[in-house]
Amino acid sequence: MKEFELIELLTKNLPQGKNVVAGPGDDCAVLKSPGAGESLLFKTDAIVEGVHFEPGAAPERIGHKALARVLSDIAAMAGAPEAALITIGLPRKFDADYVQRIYNGISRLAARHKVSIVGGETTTNPDRIFISISLLGRVENGRAVLRSGARDGDAIFVTGELGGSLSGRHLEFEPRLDEARWLAANWDLHSMIDLSDGLAGDIRHILKASEVGAELLASAIPISRAAKIASKTKSTAKPALVAALTDGEDFELLFTVPGRQAVPLLDAWKATFKTLRLSCIGKITKQPGILLRDKSGARPLTAHGYAHLA
Amino acid sequence: MKEFELIELLTKNLPQGKNVVAGPGDDCAVLKSPGAGESLLFKTDAIVEGVHFEPGAAPERIGHKALARVLSDIAAMAGAPEAALITIGLPRKFDADYVQRIYNGISRLAARHKVSIVGGETTTNPDRIFISISLLGRVENGRAVLRSGARDGDAIFVTGELGGSLSGRHLEFEPRLDEARWLAANWDLHSMIDLSDGLAGDIRHILKASEVGAELLASAIPISRAAKIASKTKSTAKPALVAALTDGEDFELLFTVPGRQAVPLLDAWKATFKTLRLSCIGKITKQPGILLRDKSGARPLTAHGYAHLA
Repeated sequence: MKEFELIELLTKNLPQGKNVVAGPGDDCAVLKSPGAGESLLFKTDAIVEGVHFEPGAAPERIGHKALARVLSDIAAMAGAPEAALITIGLPRKFDADYVQRIYNGISRLAARHKVSIVGGETTTNPDRIFISISLLGRVENGRAVLRSGARDGDAIFVTGELGGSLSGRHLEFEPRLDEARWLAANWDLHSMIDLSDGLAGDIRHILKASEVGAELLASAIPISRAAKIASKTKSTAKPALVAALTDGEDFELLFTVPGRQAVPLLDAWKATFKTLRLSCIGKITKQPGILLRDKSGARPLTAHGYAHLA
Repeated sequence: MKEFELIELLTKNLPQGKNVVAGPGDDCAVLKSPGAGESLLFKTDAIVEGVHFEPGAAPERIGHKALARVLSDIAAMAGAPEAALITIGLPRKFDADYVQRIYNGISRLAARHKVSIVGGETTTNPDRIFISISLLGRVENGRAVLRSGARDGDAIFVTGELGGSLSGRHLEFEPRLDEARWLAANWDLHSMIDLSDGLAGDIRHILKASEVGAELLASAIPISRAAKIASKTKSTAKPALVAALTDGEDFELLFTVPGRQAVPLLDAWKATFKTLRLSCIGKITKQPGILLRDKSGARPLTAHGYAHLA
């Protein structure tokens, strides 16, 4: 059983109060906050030694990644992060300095995004380090950007460059919080998700939730330098475009806006975020499924993102 | 290094915004919720296979325990729980039915206390099951009961009976949410904590935060049937009183109220909670430290609760 099937099974019939605006199935849960004019965002994410990072990785980078992943989910709702709880499971014999350095990586990123670290716990996980971070954020009432709002004719955008993240970027990426807040403040964001399992897999969450399809332009998909180099130098590597479509851990934003906003958005973006690329990679279609268009025509995109729990 | 020392090290210099009413070091974090007339409670807690439960335990009971522990922390602040996120780390080969039964245990307890399950994740923890639950709760502004409010002359109370929880009760205890809300609504609760590491250890958190001491009456400490039976039948077991003072995982409430409220509180409690014992076990003193008084006089209590991370 894959992660998605298990989640579908487990999230059936869960208790849900009237205060729940969005429960399981989007980037964050959204909860009403009575009287406050804004809603709460609530999200948790875990990384595990030997699964999401190798034992030899620098502890500051491990801590950075643990917090950056969950901040990326807050960004995907166009929210502002507020407070985090840190859970670390440690082998019975642990190096306090190593754990402190994990915390340093978390704290540095937290301070940069004005996130308070308000608690957490250390517990025993005898065989490997397990880090779980819970985050509370806020978003103006009715302004959380869900996966379910994409409409026929929307332009599809992606920030940054895709593929090859596991060669290093996954331990140092910057969550797109400022960019998401700017997008939400200035444009009609219909839907948004952060890319964790790969573009080809994650776009399906938007298409399914919005009951639409997509046509992507192969030449418009921004491919990272790491994916290009790997495809040229390693005989076992994926072609660079396939890496950009299916590699996980990009943590870039994928979003849709009305087609008429595509050009002005690109212009305004370039004037605002000078060093971060923004690409219009296709459009939302009424017809379900995903078509990938290249020189030889349009064909169904069948490549899936990888599942975390395989 | 013990858990408490590590936590003290890690919680130095963490980023803290102005919205943080109480950060690390109490049962829950307390956050301002602008305009809402109430504050947010935020807490996380994890249990690990082979550490907090044995592999053979019934999965519903494992799920129950995972949520009950964190509900107990909300109770210790006199708060009302609202929404939970569930993180489960699973070996690569897992039994979906087993995981579903863990969720059933969580959901049943959540529904009883009107807690919404709003998301979470499954991830890989190759060697053992790891369950981490984050909880969001609410409490009226200024009404969160901290550990720091105990005063000289306060009467010290404990709910239920103590000791021997690991023989079974730790998998089925009921968090004292209703009792805590009733106490906060009707009495001047100066301080409160839930007992997770044992009375002798946990009371020190209140004494340290409040800068006071305590005198406990040995004959007033409520000893569980499990601890009494173990002390009589197992030659290696602790004496029953020592078990009640030092066994972990009781998840009862320890709290203090002004001395003059002790007798009326006991009377009102008996009329309200007919099946749950409440015991006045001593008083808060100006003099630091803990004295245990029995027939032979008063002596310093040196027994510590056990640390989770040993």
